[in-house]
Order: sequence, then C-alpha cells, then structure tokens
Amino acid sequence: MREEIRTRLEVLKGIHTNLYENDFLLTWRQSEADLRAVILTAEILERFYAANLDARAFRGGLAVSIFRDKSTRTRFSFASAASLLGLSLMDLDETKTQVAHGETVRETANMISFLTEVIGIRDDMFIGEGHEYMAEVSEAVAEGHRQGVLPQKPAILNLQCDRDHPTQTMADLMHLERTFGSLEELRGRKIAMTWAHSPAYGKPLSVPQGIVGLLTRFGMEVVLAHPEGYGLMPELGEVARRQASESGGSFSVVNSMAEAFEGADVVYPKSWAPYEVMRQRTEYLRAGQADKLEALEKEGLAMNEKHKDWECTEELMATTRGGTALYMHCLPADITGVTCEAGEVAESVFDRYRLATYREASHKPYVMAAMMLCNRFEHPDRVLFRLRSQALPRHYTD
Amino acid sequence: MREEIRTRLEVLKGIHTNLYENDFLLTWRQSEADLRAVILTAEILERFYAANLDARAFRGGLAVSIFRDKSTRTRFSFASAASLLGLSLMDLDETKTQVAHGETVRETANMISFLTEVIGIRDDMFIGEGHEYMAEVSEAVAEGHRQGVLPQKPAILNLQCDRDHPTQTMADLMHLERTFGSLEELRGRKIAMTWAHSPAYGKPLSVPQGIVGLLTRFGMEVVLAHPEGYGLMPELGEVARRQASESGGSFSVVNSMAEAFEGADVVYPKSWAPYEVMRQRTEYLRAGQADKLEALEKEGLAMNEKHKDWECTEELMATTRGGTALYMHCLPADITGVTCEAGEVAESVFDRYRLATYREASHKPYVMAAMMLCNRFEHPDRVLFRLRSQALPRHYTD
Amino acid sequence: MREEIRTRLEVLKGIHTNLYENDFLLTWRQSEADLRAVILTAEILERFYAANLDARAFRGGLAVSIFRDKSTRTRFSFASAASLLGLSLMDLDETKTQVAHGETVRETANMISFLTEVIGIRDDMFIGEGHEYMAEVSEAVAEGHRQGVLPQKPAILNLQCDRDHPTQTMADLMHLERTFGSLEELRGRKIAMTWAHSPAYGKPLSVPQGIVGLLTRFGMEVVLAHPEGYGLMPELGEVARRQASESGGSFSVVNSMAEAFEGADVVYPKSWAPYEVMRQRTEYLRAGQADKLEALEKEGLAMNEKHKDWECTEELMATTRGGTALYMHCLPADITGVTCEAGEVAESVFDRYRLATYREASHKPYVMAAMMLCNRFEHPDRVLFRLRSQALPRHYTD
Repeated sequence: MREEIRTRLEVLKGIHTNLYENDFLLTWRQSEADLRAVILTAEILERFYAANLDARAFRGGLAVSIFRDKSTRTRFSFASAASLLGLSLMDLDETKTQVAHGETVRETANMISFLTEVIGIRDDMFIGEGHEYMAEVSEAVAEGHRQGVLPQKPAILNLQCDRDHPTQTMADLMHLERTFGSLEELRGRKIAMTWAHSPAYGKPLSVPQGIVGLLTRFGMEVVLAHPEGYGLMPELGEVARRQASESGGSFSVVNSMAEAFEGADVVYPKSWAPYEVMRQRTEYLRAGQADKLEALEKEGLAMNEKHKDWECTEELMATTRGGTALYMHCLPADITGVTCEAGEVAESVFDRYRLATYREASHKPYVMAAMMLCNRFEHPDRVLFRLRSQALPRHYTD
Repeated sequence: MREEIRTRLEVLKGIHTNLYENDFLLTWRQSEADLRAVILTAEILERFYAANLDARAFRGGLAVSIFRDKSTRTRFSFASAASLLGLSLMDLDETKTQVAHGETVRETANMISFLTEVIGIRDDMFIGEGHEYMAEVSEAVAEGHRQGVLPQKPAILNLQCDRDHPTQTMADLMHLERTFGSLEELRGRKIAMTWAHSPAYGKPLSVPQGIVGLLTRFGMEVVLAHPEGYGLMPELGEVARRQASESGGSFSVVNSMAEAFEGADVVYPKSWAPYEVMRQRTEYLRAGQADKLEALEKEGLAMNEKHKDWECTEELMATTRGGTALYMHCLPADITGVTCEAGEVAESVFDRYRLATYREASHKPYVMAAMMLCNRFEHPDRVLFRLRSQALPRHYTD
Repeated sequence: MREEIRTRLEVLKGIHTNLYENDFLLTWRQSEADLRAVILTAEILERFYAANLDARAFRGGLAVSIFRDKSTRTRFSFASAASLLGLSLMDLDETKTQVAHGETVRETANMISFLTEVIGIRDDMFIGEGHEYMAEVSEAVAEGHRQGVLPQKPAILNLQCDRDHPTQTMADLMHLERTFGSLEELRGRKIAMTWAHSPAYGKPLSVPQGIVGLLTRFGMEVVLAHPEGYGLMPELGEVARRQASESGGSFSVVNSMAEAFEGADVVYPKSWAPYEVMRQRTEYLRAGQADKLEALEKEGLAMNEKHKDWECTEELMATTRGGTALYMHCLPADITGVTCEAGEVAESVFDRYRLATYREASHKPYVMAAMMLCNRFEHPDRVLFRLRSQALPRHYTD
C-alpha cells in the first residue's frame, strides 16, 4: 500500500494544475489536469486511510460549513474530510447567528475566517442564487486576504449549488473509474443520465447538470433523457456539446427513457424539478408571493404525476448493454414500494445495486479532502510525501 | 500514578473478553469478564487523565452522536470521551438532515460511517423501539464493513435505550466500587432500587432496569420497590432472578419503600413511568392518536400523585444500615422544595449526598471511552501501554 | 518572527499577574498587569500563527460555549481560539438539553466540566442577570474542583455580559495599540464613545460600558456622549471617573455628538438601549408581563426615532483631529442606506474604515486564547517557550 502511494505521488507531482488558492466551484471551469489531480489526490488519501497513515496536514484551524439546505451525507462527508486533515469543524447555523439580521455576506465571510482554512457551502435551492453566493464569499475572503485582514485565504468548497454538485460528480467519476478500470476506459461508453419520477417537489438540477457537465469530458456517449419541460439550465447544453466534441464523445438529449437506456453501460435515473418551475419559484420567493408559490408547487407535482412511467425497471435494465449496466444514484433514491408508492427505481433493481451506490458515496470525503489540500497547498504531493515519510499511525495498532 | 497504571494494565492484559468489534448494548448480554474489562479500562483512563498523560489512541476520525431525546450530561460525557481519545465529534441532528424524509436507517448508518469509529445513540422514549433501533444500526454497519463499503466497523454505544442505560449503570458500579473498596466488597450488601414520586410524566425505565440487570451479578441483595402498576419490563425480572441466583445474591420485588430501605447499604430512589403506560404510549404514538395520548398523560400524572409518600426522607434514611446508606441518583433529581413541590428526595438528604452524586456522574466519560477502546481495539492493553510509554503530556505543564 | 516571539516572551515572564485559576469577568476588576499580560499573550499567539507554529498547549479536552443570545463573530472567535490551543469545541445548546427542565446551574456547571478546560458564556440580554450567571457558574466549578469532583477548574470566559464585553474591548485596545504604536501612545488622546441612532431595539450596553471601563485606565481623554435617557449603568460612571483620575486621563459625559467628536483621535459611534428601558425589560420579563414588554419596545423605538441626527457623518468626521480620527465599531454596524434607512454611520465613512474594523475584530480569537492560557497555566510564558522550542508547523509547508 505504501508503494502504491509512492507511485501515485510521483504522478501527482507531474501534473500542473491551477488549483492552488483558486476555488473549484464548477467542474467545467477547471482544466482536465485539475480534475485528474483532485481524483488522484483523493485516491492517495483513500490509501493513506487504508494503510492506517495519519493524513493530518493541519494542526488545528477551522473547516466551516454553511448549509442552506438539509443534508446528511454531504454534512458528514465534509466533517470526515476536515477530521482527516486535522481541522476543527464549525457550522455556521444561520438560525443561531446574526446573518439573517442584515449582516452583509462580505463582512460575515471575513468574520468567520480569521483562522479558517476551508469554507464548504451548500446553497442549491434557488436557481440563479447558489453559485453567485459562493462566488461572493470567495471574492470577500480573497479581498480580506489581499488587504491583510486574513492571514490565509480559505478555500471555498462547493457542496452543491444551483448549477453543479462537483463533490458528488467527482465521487461518481471515481466510482466509474473503479468500476471500469481507468478514466481512459470510459471512452466510448454510453451513460444515460435520465429523469425519473418522484412524488417529491423541487429536487435540485445540480446532479444531472453536473453529470453532463463532467462526463462529456472523458469521451463518453452522454445521453440526457427527460420528459418535455424538464430541461436543464440552457448554458449546460452548450457546455456539454462543446466538451463532448473536444473529447471525442457525444452529447444528445432525448425525451425517452427507453432510448437512453438502450445499450447503455451506465444509467443514472434521478428526479429533478423543471428548470422553468425552479426559475419562477426563485422569482416568486423574492417577491414574497406565497399564493403563487403554492400554485407552482401544485403545478410541479401534477407535472411529475404525468410521468410515472419514468421508472428504472427490470425491463428497462434488460435493454442495457448485456442487461448489466451500472446503476448509479447520489442517494437517497425514491424506491417504488419501499420509500414511496411510485418512484425512480424498482425495488429489485435498487437492491441489486444498493451496496454499489454506497461505494459510490464512499469517495465523497476523500474528494472533499483532496479539494481542500489542492487549494491550500501549492505542492500537495510534497505535503503528502512528508506525511508518508513521517508515517504516524492514524490509530494505534495492537 | 504511572505505576498504578502499569499494574492495572497487567490485569487488563489477563482478561479475555468478547468486546472487540462486538457492540455492548445490554449489560446482561455481556460476560462478567467484559464488564470487568470495561471498568478496569475506565479506571486506567481516569489515571491517565490525572497523570496528565495523552490518551489519544486515534489521530482523527469521527465519533457520531444521535440523540433522540434531550440530554445534557450524556451529551457532554460522550463529547469528552471522544476528545480524550482523539476523535472529532459530529452530531446527527435529525431535524437538520434528511433522516425524516424517508431515508432508511440502513442507508443512513452507512452514509455517516465512512470515517467513523463510534456511533453513540440515545433512544429511550418508546418501549420496544430504542434497543431495536440500535441493533438495526449495528447490523447495518456490520454489513457495510463485511461488504467492503466501510473500512472499519464503528462501535455502537448505547447511550440509553428503552431497556438499559449501560454507561450510567457502569458508572454507578464504579461509584460503588470506589465507595466500598472493590467489586468483591459489594457481595452481600443490600441495595434498594426504589421508585420515587415525581411531578413529571414519562421518565424512562432504563435506569431501574439497568440497575437490577447489572447489580444482581455481583452477589448483592437487590430489592426493587415500587407502587403497584409501576413494574419494569417483564424480561428484566427473569434476568435479575437468574443472575442473582448465579452470583449468590438475591433479587426481590416489594411494594414498600420502607421495606426496601430497611437496613440497606445503598439506596437509589428514582421516578419512572409505569411500563404499561409507556407501552400504550408507543402504540398510540404509532397510530397517531393524539387524544388518547393526552388522556394517557393525565392518567399517568394522576397515578403519580397517589404516591407522593414515595419520597426519600430523613426518616427513611435513618432506617438504613447505620443510618448512613449511600444515596445514589443519575441526576437530575426532583428535590422537594427545590426543583419541585413534592419530589423524589428531601432537600437535606440530597444536600448531604450532592457532591457524591457528582462524583458518581464523573465516571461516565471514562466508561464511554473504555467501551470505545475495547470495541475498536483487539488488545486495548497494548494500545494503552504504548500511550503510557510515549508519555505525551495532555497539557503542557509549566 | 521567532525572535519577536522570544523578546515578547521575556517581557511576559516579568509580568506578575493574578490570572492563574482566576476568572477574568470584568476588566475593571483586573490589575493593569493582568490586562498587559493578556494583550501580550494575544500578540505572541498572533505571531505564532503568522510564523506557522503549532500553539496547541492542550492535547484534547473541551472548550464549552454557552450562548444565551445570537452570535456569529464571537461564536467563531471562540471556536478558533479553542482549535488554536488544541481543545475540542462543545456548545451547550439549552434548547437541546435539560437545562430548561429545572436543573440547577450549579449541577449543570459541574456535569459539563469533567474534562473541560474553558467555559465561554454570552449572557447579555438582561440587566442584572448576565454577570451574576457567570459568577454563579464560576463558583460552582470552583466548588467542584475544591471538593475533588473536577480534576481541573475550567476557566470561565465572559463572551459578553450585561456589564462588560471584555474580549471585544481588549481586542479594541489591541487595535488602538497597533494603530498608535503602543499603549503608552494612547495617553492624552481623545476617544469619543458615542451613542448613535439605530432602527433596532434593545442593543446591549456592554460595549460602551466596557470601553469607558477599560480606556480610562490608559490616560485617555474619554468622552461618553448620548442623548438624555441613554445613560449607562450607574456604577460605570464611578468606575470610569476613578480610573481616569488614577491614570492621569479624564472622563466626561456630554449630550452632544458634535462636542464629543470635536478634535477626537478616535470615535466609536454605536447604538445601545437606554439603561432604564433595559432594567424595566428584565423586570417585566421576570413577571411575564408580555403586554408591558410590547409597550416598552414601542417606547424604546420611539425614543430612538427622536435621535436620528446621532449619525456618524462626513461632516462630523471632519471635526475630528485633522479630520482623520480612527473610526471603530464592534460590528455589525447599522449603515445608512445600506443595512437600514437611517443608521449609526454614513456609508462613505464606513466604507473608508471597513477593512480597519475587520482588523479590529481579527484580534478577538487571540484575546480569547490568551485569556484561556493565562487562566489555565501558572506560567504561560513557559508553556509558550516550550511550544516555540518544539516548533511544530501549524500546517505542513511545501
């Protein structure tokens, strides 16, 4: 294991990235080298953990989380990444603070950052808001650092915004790499990122957007499928098309789940809200129009109900390549007959892939820790080499 | 102090337990060797602390707490134990997460456990629920570990369930050992575990159950006293009787506080709800019958009111052995004239033993840390030997 | 930097304080040596951080926070200080615990302190309550320590009470020292601590009280200005007058913002509630008189409205010494046209000093850490010397 770490560190050393002190907010704004460096660092950290090696590059300092939406897995992944690197977790709970009382984002960002190395933010509820908020926090701490207020510039981690969910999709990419052997092995493989029915309203678009925005870079045949009216943010189509053409892959949008599944190597059936509904929702919320919001929710749910046939069934799975496509999900899934009456996936399909989806999720803490390391250190390979040489046990063995 | 640690470590080394990677959920399911090993480890950790020795067997990793009921002392004991061993605390606050949104326990258990060493759970509100929930989480992470999802199997710590409260009762046992000199000195001593009046409704049964389920193993004369209708879960009577007979002690149930106190070496007067009421409460809650629940609460309170004479008074204390029985309580106590009009204990009695009850509670962080160590390490003695040799100061001295 | 640390440690070594195991609750009860030692220690810790030196004097143990009022910056400063020194943060959230259920303060204070090094408390809402609560907790853990319940006596940190806000005002003092070159350079300088208009009700008096209670000790010309009816707690006037006379400075109270600003070196315009209103508020709250409370709030807000002209404008700033007085604020400020319609300060004035107020705030984590160190160690200089010799990097460099 220690030898595996060494060879990977040699590769990492050779990758020239732009990650140091630059915030990784949207995968499609990062170079391929950036993506490869993060994945490689995450893999090295997984091996550190397995080899019982202490990976604490920090001796104290804060990892701050700001969750503007409920979260279990992302919250725990972030806490795990912080602990892995030696940082103390601190949650900015906006209900307990004065944030709601007119403080400006710029000021708060600096006030929480005097000894802070990382700020992880989840803000995925409103189209046109999440990414802007992260960019605003990023600029605020950058100014604070330039002006000598902050001794260091905390890394901003996108824990899910309205546009992208990079810690999820990078973990998904690691799962694909593990499943098919390498990133190169993804070339030419077909992935069906499809809408699926859910009884819930208002699920974010960041996962499907993030998936088509990331996987089109690796030469995959990416097919996005959804009922009419469930399109993604328009810019994503352009991004996906351009990237697919550059990487030698393809990107297409269809309105049929069956067409997407046909011969697919990978399927990712998952519900999301219609972009137009989400956009209007933000507008009504800003205007405080509660009655219109309520009507919109009803409309959204009624739209969903028309597409109960968008379910990942055994019949559909049988049409994939060899009938054995990899089923993926960011969890929790809406499982028909288990967590709801009519959901995204049939019980027997989910059951077969349940543990695989757990493994898919297991990469998230390491992806987050890798993003932290690559942002906060100019040469993460040197830091990790040093930690490997030091070779302190993560826990005492007996 | 360091010599005291060494001799105890030698004893610990000689105890063969079944604790490694096995969850300690109910004391009566553990061997006597298991109990002795936990207590001995807790005592060693207390000496580590007093000797200003660093006891951090871990360098990072999570200690997760799940509190399904309010808690101060248990919450802080758990946090203290985690910090003592070098773990980062992370609370699963079910109001902030998606747990309430249909996620299955199995999935959540794995999602929070990728870098988790311990999960402490308090779930004591509903008869027939708490222990089952813990067992479910335990099985879920065991499966995750077997299937390669989790690199380690987190220890599940019972921080109070509907049946037992092992971290409390093991701390109580340490308090008795300290008071009387040794576990062997408990043999033949009489303990009165008695119901006492409280103006509060719905106090858990886990402390009296845990006390009779634990102290009957050490040759004590255990007398359980309560008004009619306040019996414990039926299985506890069987457990207590069997254990008493095996240990050469005794177990009896009486309906008189005076009879229980007569000649007792130890008294533990504490309120709890009638088992039958608690059982019905769970039923009504599951069925969502709010009106029946309200009626039940009234009934429960009215029952309590009939037994205001079940108070630990000076008169009763005078009837104990030499008039100087040890008064115990898990705190907070309902003190007549102080925290309520008519409670479990007279003010003057409580005052005399107040600091003793604080000391009783002081063992809890060490009991929890001991359970963590014994579950996560096959040879906790070796880990502690190593920490003792390393001899890093817990804080710098000047 | 390491040499700067050494010379300051030599000075610290020579200061004889009364801080060890004594709680620093009100600056005016501490000796000047105490104040100088805390500031010097804070400055040394700032240099440790800048020099990338590990300052963790503790290996585990809890830093407990109790916030009885909303807080962002104080909450994060406390967490940062704890992490800097190697302590684990634990918040006592009174809504999640049994504190509200009749537990006495004395008992809870001990129950949360078995492995606790510091308890930080914010309790600033009610006149006549906050300081008393802190003193009660302080006495409770002192008793616990004397009686052998607690192996150590946790330091109580005043994170803002009804009387004083020492971590804020000590950070303010560091800001003045940094701005003017030394504490000696403050002698003879005029500071205007003035009331300013705010649309908010019930802002604490602890900052103006703390400022006049602290800065009158350094030979400054302290002018307190407020509209009639906005006087501070009576005892503060006496304290300020006595201290000013002892230090060779002065203290005066005027009812004109213009008079206070005239020729000032420093201005601190900030809103607060009238003492009499705050006093009555506590009374009504205790008596549960909701209607009277509501009327009082209306009255308070109406009073504020009469004094909209109490705003720190460019015109007023122009009258200060050279037109360039240092503007100070504890943040968040009510900025006219930005965070409210009519506030404490004009936008252009605030903008000019915005980064300076951030720097002012940046000292707080170090002041808190310094108070922790000076309370918990008899010779903090020796602890810091040792950490400096050990010279572990705070984070790995590459």
